[in-house]
Amino acid sequence: MRVLIIGAAGMIGHKLTRRLLEERRLAGQPLSALDLADVIAPSMPAAADLAITPFQVDISRESDVKSLVARRPDVIFYLAAIVSGEAEADFAKGYAMNLDGTRHVLEAVRAQKDYCPKLIFTSSIAVFGAPFPDIIEDEFFTTPRTSYGTQKAIGELLVSDYSRRGYLDGLSLRLPTICVRPGKPNAAASGFFSNIIREPLQGKPAILPVSRDVRHWHASPRAAIAFLLHAAALDTTPLGARRTISLPGLCVSVAEQIEALRDVAGAKAVALIRDEPNETIARIVAGWPQNFTAQRALDLGFKPDASFAEIIRIHLEDDAVAQPL
Amino acid sequence: MRVLIIGAAGMIGHKLTRRLLEERRLAGQPLSALDLADVIAPSMPAAADLAITPFQVDISRESDVKSLVARRPDVIFYLAAIVSGEAEADFAKGYAMNLDGTRHVLEAVRAQKDYCPKLIFTSSIAVFGAPFPDIIEDEFFTTPRTSYGTQKAIGELLVSDYSRRGYLDGLSLRLPTICVRPGKPNAAASGFFSNIIREPLQGKPAILPVSRDVRHWHASPRAAIAFLLHAAALDTTPLGARRTISLPGLCVSVAEQIEALRDVAGAKAVALIRDEPNETIARIVAGWPQNFTAQRALDLGFKPDASFAEIIRIHLEDDAVAQPL
Repeated sequence: MRVLIIGAAGMIGHKLTRRLLEERRLAGQPLSALDLADVIAPSMPAAADLAITPFQVDISRESDVKSLVARRPDVIFYLAAIVSGEAEADFAKGYAMNLDGTRHVLEAVRAQKDYCPKLIFTSSIAVFGAPFPDIIEDEFFTTPRTSYGTQKAIGELLVSDYSRRGYLDGLSLRLPTICVRPGKPNAAASGFFSNIIREPLQGKPAILPVSRDVRHWHASPRAAIAFLLHAAALDTTPLGARRTISLPGLCVSVAEQIEALRDVAGAKAVALIRDEPNETIARIVAGWPQNFTAQRALDLGFKPDASFAEIIRIHLEDDAVAQPL
Repeated sequence: MRVLIIGAAGMIGHKLTRRLLEERRLAGQPLSALDLADVIAPSMPAAADLAITPFQVDISRESDVKSLVARRPDVIFYLAAIVSGEAEADFAKGYAMNLDGTRHVLEAVRAQKDYCPKLIFTSSIAVFGAPFPDIIEDEFFTTPRTSYGTQKAIGELLVSDYSRRGYLDGLSLRLPTICVRPGKPNAAASGFFSNIIREPLQGKPAILPVSRDVRHWHASPRAAIAFLLHAAALDTTPLGARRTISLPGLCVSVAEQIEALRDVAGAKAVALIRDEPNETIARIVAGWPQNFTAQRALDLGFKPDASFAEIIRIHLEDDAVAQPL
């Protein structure tokens, strides 16, 4: 089985690659080839018995995407995107990458004859926009308040239509916010959800810009990878034309995050968190969804993390020491 | 005030033009110029004191759309689309017209400096796909089961995002099925809803391919024009980022349609309807939505037809004798 990862150099792409190299199987089939594509050529893991090929691509260029897809992968993980802040700052670039890019991938698949790959598209809870009910059900409408969310919602519609028409066998996965994100603190408005855990665990201070009663919807990187693998193995027949799935996460308040940190790492870690209210960030975060039933995903066998303390332990196991490929 | 109608040669575009020529005003402002665009140059009404200009355009060509929008209309009615059946039969053409075309219109507006026109985009209840609840509320999700519905749902998302960013002041209107459609019977799966009224009124037979207990969501052409005019005059400030509106219609069964026909035109007209069940049409129609609350639209002052008998009387007044421009 040939697998293509578009967006292989990102955090999720990197972890997915590592996991596939461990498993050497996907959807019950042995892995024979792994094509790793990103805007910068992904770092090449060593694997004697597996054809691993890196590709440097610009998905906003139709020809780049065409040559990737012409290799006829059996499964395509389509993870690549310009992130929310950048899509908001550069309107044209956001649409070129996140909408035109998606159409190029889907059209490249459609152009192949006798070909119907599994395609897993990572969408986002950013397709939702406030005001919200207390808990968002699976049939709630998408009214994004960012261009990124708009582009993801459009991607979902396209994946469903191309699937309905039989050009591909697609699934769009609305990932919760990934927490704890490894790496350095970044400027993303959502960064603090990870910063307040990751930094204190390393003995470093972290700033909390919002009130401790703010709730959010989290999944660990390990859960995210499990979602992708589960989706790749899923029989989509029962889904019909509804190919978008809101995935299960944990709805926890910042206070609950901090209590879990205390349980795992003690009061000394917690003392490193400094409240420094930031109006701008608080306003952005107030527009984000907080809680979902994710009933359809649960029925389909997607599994959330067990607890936020578990999310912290996963971070310590998987990321506290950087793992080379 | 300059008004541009894209799709002026269609049934709705034609009626909207006629109405604007009667009113000579829109959104409280006097009309000074009317630009009428369609894939075939629209027929030119006579009007001494008004600059009326016809345009033959292909909206899938960026340059065509750019020169139209460069005239900086104050209000744009964007009605043009490849219909459902054609978008399903010709996948590439449907996307070229209904998605690329929409992006060309929105991008042409964005390219103008210091410009923020009102843009009214006609969407459709085809953005919804079965299974449905008994009555569809305003926050129900869009899971189209046609490429046409997918393209309309994408158009809605784009109109909302461009509005949120301040490039235009947009509204997407989900029109009910228009009934009674004037003209000849056509091959559209929904054609019979109009045929069973229009043909008997002319003393001609009509075929009913579905069961009489089938319910559907209707609005008269006159109500549709009133929706467009009301939308053009609407203050969109209270709508925030949610620029899509499911419009009010009448949820009536085929049996209720036929009873209304009996009230208006007598038993002789009703006797011209012949039941001839068609499995294919019945299956397509079963996938269509039947009933909406349309609460938000009602709150915003959009008004449905009073009754199906009223819809028939509107047909007799407005269309039973063809009206020249």
